[in-house]
Parts: sequence; structure tokens; C-alpha cells
Amino acid sequence: MESKMYHFPVQIYYEDTDHSGVVYHANYLKYFERAREEVIGSEKLAAMWNDQKLGFAVYKLDIQYNEGAEFGDVLDIRTSFKKEGDYRVVWRQEAWRKDGKKAAVAANIHLVCVSSEKKLLKIPNLDLFT
Amino acid sequence: MESKMYHFPVQIYYEDTDHSGVVYHANYLKYFERAREEVIGSEKLAAMWNDQKLGFAVYKLDIQYNEGAEFGDVLDIRTSFKKEGDYRVVWRQEAWRKDGKKAAVAANIHLVCVSSEKKLLKIPNLDLFT
Amino acid sequence: MESKMYHFPVQIYYEDTDHSGVVYHANYLKYFERAREEVIGSEKLAAMWNDQKLGFAVYKLDIQYNEGAEFGDVLDIRTSFKKEGDYRVVWRQEAWRKDGKKAAVAANIHLVCVSSEKKLLKIPNLDLFT
Amino acid sequence: MESKMYHFPVQIYYEDTDHSGVVYHANYLKYFERAREEVIGSEKLAAMWNDQKLGFAVYKLDIQYNEGAEFGDVLDIRTSFKKEGDYRVVWRQEAWRKDGKKAAVAANIHLVCVSSEKKLLKIPNLDLFT
Repeated sequence: MESKMYHFPVQIYYEDTDHSGVVYHANYLKYFERAREEVIGSEKLAAMWNDQKLGFAVYKLDIQYNEGAEFGDVLDIRTSFKKEGDYRVVWRQEAWRKDGKKAAVAANIHLVCVSSEKKLLKIPNLDLFT
Repeated sequence: MESKMYHFPVQIYYEDTDHSGVVYHANYLKYFERAREEVIGSEKLAAMWNDQKLGFAVYKLDIQYNEGAEFGDVLDIRTSFKKEGDYRVVWRQEAWRKDGKKAAVAANIHLVCVSSEKKLLKIPNLDLFT
Repeated sequence: MESKMYHFPVQIYYEDTDHSGVVYHANYLKYFERAREEVIGSEKLAAMWNDQKLGFAVYKLDIQYNEGAEFGDVLDIRTSFKKEGDYRVVWRQEAWRKDGKKAAVAANIHLVCVSSEKKLLKIPNLDLFT
Repeated sequence: MESKMYHFPVQIYYEDTDHSGVVYHANYLKYFERAREEVIGSEKLAAMWNDQKLGFAVYKLDIQYNEGAEFGDVLDIRTSFKKEGDYRVVWRQEAWRKDGKKAAVAANIHLVCVSSEKKLLKIPNLDLFT
């Protein structure tokens, strides 16, 4: 079952752009990760890591770029997710520009849970992934 | 005359840290720039760039690292500034961890204003740099 | 027709890793772009940009992460490409760790050519994309 | 006693620039770190970290920006260092553009050695810091 949709704003600063005048393509993966961390909760993620040495890792993703965001934009990152089996959470994440008619950038991102020894583990519940 | 002090929060994500477990030293310069852009106003900066091809550039800076911030921290970036003559704005910027007894990181950053042809220009007023 | 395979080394530094101890997932897109720029030639790309305001842009990509690279690794970035029609070049790019039995990370990356006004253009020949 | 001068080339890619058309100011700190890692040796640094959980950390630095590097540049990073007492190594690092008459960017960077518990330690010899 798909989760509700979450919204997360990202202000585009100098650091985000490249000399072509738009946001460097790899940076959207950072915005999507920030948005996922807000959904899960940074305190929970930090506790998982500090107490149990567990973390989420991206296993695979696909991403499509329809339009480049620019300096001064505030992107609306739209996030929803779905647990698939015991070992994977699939996230749908989109970056929308203000007044955009479709997503500027859209991605499907598959996350797994790994120990610090890189062993694959079941996704923890975290009051979120039921 | 020194400006008032501005506060800007920065959440520390995976992207910010390195394998030593703390924030990578160069990243504080990004946080300081984000905070300066909030003080000046992103719309004003974008308009300056798009309409007049003017931008601010860092001319020089010094920075001291007292303590490393960690994943899950929310840093309080404290910013104040002072115009020095017609061509320079000097910023004092500090990154504070929660419950910190002194700044984790502190910097003095000198900004100038340049055209797209790299010509040095007077600092524009912007209702800020009087 | 698929191109020959190109090799490009990437040394993993502090800046590349995150606090989980491996390379941050978005950074592989940077390594792949560096490798593509070496294949095409930075001088050609800079000339295209400076003289004609043309550049390549990533239109879409998929990427799979099999293993995390670590500080001190020297990755072998393996790159080949294929022109598809007049408007697209599809790149196969893999990051191999030393003594790796399969690619640590592998991606398929679709590039298009755009003007500075974001108009889609035919892929220029560049003595490469015949 | 000042060390000899080391040279390290850095190719400027899309990822390095921002929308103003030049290298983003924080990125020079990355280039300087890469150059220091080449001087010390990545294998030595990785071994120090993996076997003893020791690492170098930047304690303070000052940096001056004289000229912006551009996409397609190959910077010559010039590095020398001097041990000061038992606990500090001071590095002089400069980024030179081709045919530059002076350094585009120049920095003085103070490094200390810390354990994973953030305890300050004597600089290890490493056949370098005698």
C-alpha cells in the first residue's frame, strides 16, 4: 500500500548549480535523500546508526530529468513510498518547480537495510514501514 | 557598524559527513553561504544575477574548526556582517551545535561584488548594506 | 554500434565518503560524468559551450549499487556508448573495485544535446558520434 | 623546515562550477585535500584509519581567491608543508591556472592528528613528517 504524499522544500543555492545555469544532475539525489530522512526522522536514523550500526542504502534507482531547476528556485520535493516484501522500500520522489505543469525531475528509488558489515537485513518497522 | 545577528538552521544529512564520522570540513562553507543568501534574500540575488549579471564573490576567508558536527545534528548558523568601505562586506559566521559551549566552527568571510566580466563593483545597497 | 570500452581511474578521497564508511551514492554520477568528459574531450566540451552555448544534458538514467567503494579505493570506471537516432547517446558505465568479480556500480545513462535556451538539438559529430 | 614543492593536476568538470561560470569557492578545499592525500599517500592514510582509527583533521585555514577557475581548466595544485612542533603540520597550497601570473587561489592550512574519539595526538612520522 502506497503511503500518503509528503512535501519537503529545497531552496536552490549557488552550490547546487553548475556553469550551464541549472542544478547539477547528481544533486537531485541529495534532495531526495534529505526528503526521505525527513519522512523517516533524522533522530530515528541517527539512533539506528549509533545504537545498532544499521542504515538504509540505495540498491537501485531510475531518474528522469524533464526540466532544469535554477538558482533561486524553491523545489517542492514530493515523496511517497511502499514496502515491497520484508527487505525493500520503494520510494517515488519528484521535484516540482513553482507553477510547474509536471515534475521537473522524477525518480523511483529502491532502499534496503544493511548492517555495518554490509549484511542485508529486514526493514525495521520504525512506526512507518508496517 | 555590525548588523544584528541572524540565525539559520542546517540539518546534517548523510551527504554532509565523511567516513571519519563528522561533517567534511569544506561543507561548512556551503552552510555559511546558504545563511548569507537567506540574509540577503534569494530573490534579490537571483534578480541581481538575471537582470544585471552581478554577483557576490568570496575574496578571502579564515575559518577555525573546534568541534566536528555529526549526522543528525541541527546546526545553528549565526551570522552578522559589517560593510567596510564601498567594496567589501565582512561576515562573521559561526556554526553552533545544540548545547555547545562555544562555536563548533567560526569564520570571517570577505565578500566583494563582481560583474560577469569579473570587474570589481561597489556593493549594491539592497536595503541592507547602508 | 557500441563504441570500444574506455577506462578512467577515480581515486576515492575523504570528500567522496559518508559516515557509513562508503562512497555516498550520488557521487558515482560525478565519476561517470568525469569519465564521459574524458571520452568526449574537455576542450571540445568547453569549446562547444563557449562558442555555441551547446551542452550535453542527462535526460534519464538507471543505476544499480552492488557494493560500496571505500576510502583509498581506486575505481576503474568503464565506459562505452552508442548513438541512438539523431538526438540521443546512451552510455553504459560501470565502477569496478580492484579484484572485483562484478561491477560495484553500473548505470545506463541517456544524454541529449541542448542549447542554452534548453532547445533540444541533434547530437554533434565531434569525430566520435558518427 | 619547508618541504619540497609537490604538483598535483585537477581537471575542472561540470560538478566543480556554479551558475556564475566559475569554480564554487568551497571546492578548492577539496582539491587541496586531494593534493595532500597524494603527498602523504592514500594507502598510508587508509591504513592509519583502518588499523589505528587515526586521521588528520583541519584545525584552521585561511584562503584567498584572486581569480576564478573555469570549466575545462586543468589546475596545477602546488603544495608544500612544514611541521610545527609535535602536533601540527602547516600546509601552503596554491591553485594555478595555465599561464597564470600568480596563484588563482592560495591557502594556509593547519592540520592536526586526532583519534576516532577526537583526542589530539602527536603527528605520526609516516616517513614524511620528520
